[in-house]
Amino acid sequence: MAAGDEEGIGFDDELMVATARTLATHGLGDLTTQRVADEWDKSPPLVHYYYDTKDDLVRGFIEYVRAVLKRSYEAHADDDPIERVAWLLKRHFVGSHGPGEPVFTRSLLEVQSQAAHNEAHCQAIEALDADARRFLREAIADGIEAGVFRDVDVDHTVSFLLAAVRGGLFRFGLFEDDDTAESLVEGLDGYIEEQLLAESVDPATLDLTAK
Amino acid sequence: MAAGDEEGIGFDDELMVATARTLATHGLGDLTTQRVADEWDKSPPLVHYYYDTKDDLVRGFIEYVRAVLKRSYEAHADDDPIERVAWLLKRHFVGSHGPGEPVFTRSLLEVQSQAAHNEAHCQAIEALDADARRFLREAIADGIEAGVFRDVDVDHTVSFLLAAVRGGLFRFGLFEDDDTAESLVEGLDGYIEEQLLAESVDPATLDLTAK
Repeated sequence: MAAGDEEGIGFDDELMVATARTLATHGLGDLTTQRVADEWDKSPPLVHYYYDTKDDLVRGFIEYVRAVLKRSYEAHADDDPIERVAWLLKRHFVGSHGPGEPVFTRSLLEVQSQAAHNEAHCQAIEALDADARRFLREAIADGIEAGVFRDVDVDHTVSFLLAAVRGGLFRFGLFEDDDTAESLVEGLDGYIEEQLLAESVDPATLDLTAK
Repeated sequence: MAAGDEEGIGFDDELMVATARTLATHGLGDLTTQRVADEWDKSPPLVHYYYDTKDDLVRGFIEYVRAVLKRSYEAHADDDPIERVAWLLKRHFVGSHGPGEPVFTRSLLEVQSQAAHNEAHCQAIEALDADARRFLREAIADGIEAGVFRDVDVDHTVSFLLAAVRGGLFRFGLFEDDDTAESLVEGLDGYIEEQLLAESVDPATLDLTAK
């Protein structure tokens, strides 16, 4: 996801982009105020002015990503159900194998991977996850009502799709293995074609493998 | 996975179980030789006798888990293809939401999550992942040949199934959310029933939701 997708990049955005770059390059373990300040091209006290501690900064970063994603979800909320599902899956994984800029994908993976030991980070990620889940649930429910999707169990389908996307991202973040990523997209595409799209709908309408 | 699944627990196994417990409790960041020694009920120099550095110990742990899993794969290699797929998916996720003991699931997740910053750990995990992939690929190919599975693309199916399992484990490791885990098992089960099993096969033959 590009920071400031729908608006200009402000001061806060710059700090968050610097945080993302630092996380992606050095990892959470080696994230320091000094490194973020260097990446931001400002002084460490200015980072501290915004965020007291490293934990605050990381939580602020997760909340920032959530806010940016939330704006995107709202902007797409009234799209056609098929377009909404395609957009979410493509945005989260397909194509760049992550939300827009790899640096944001990698930094978010980094934070998620280590959130098990930090209650506040874990809660912030759970909120971000719940937003994605809600968006996909509504899209699928609307599509069933409109007759473009089969009468699937919405929760099972959402859990399965998001688990596959999350597992794929996690694997890609670790091995950067393009072949397996493409193979996963084909698998995801087959599932959508054979289990989600109504038989009357042209499968090309939701083709994740299309470039 | 219970250490020493198929044989008695030896000295090495005890050290590895202690490492797993330490990882699961304290996380990789706070893993120290002292903590592992305490968990093992031995002295730190004995840990160092086996593994020079913390990195060596962690790599040794991943290789140990791989060896235990490899023995299980070999023990199941000649099972019926449907049983092999069911066993792999259940062992990796369904039921306990992980391979046997939650402590091993959690410790392996912990190591995987942070492997992006350690080339040697990353390679050790890639080897472990390749074993699982090979086992599932052979099981599905054999099942297609035997006519119990549909004529699916083996690689796409394997990538998709393993991504869903990995994503589910990752999510469960973070949020310990039973509802979503059960919902994922239902989704996985639906996929297998509708896309993998041949139409002539009774879906109950590979029912992941069965306790």
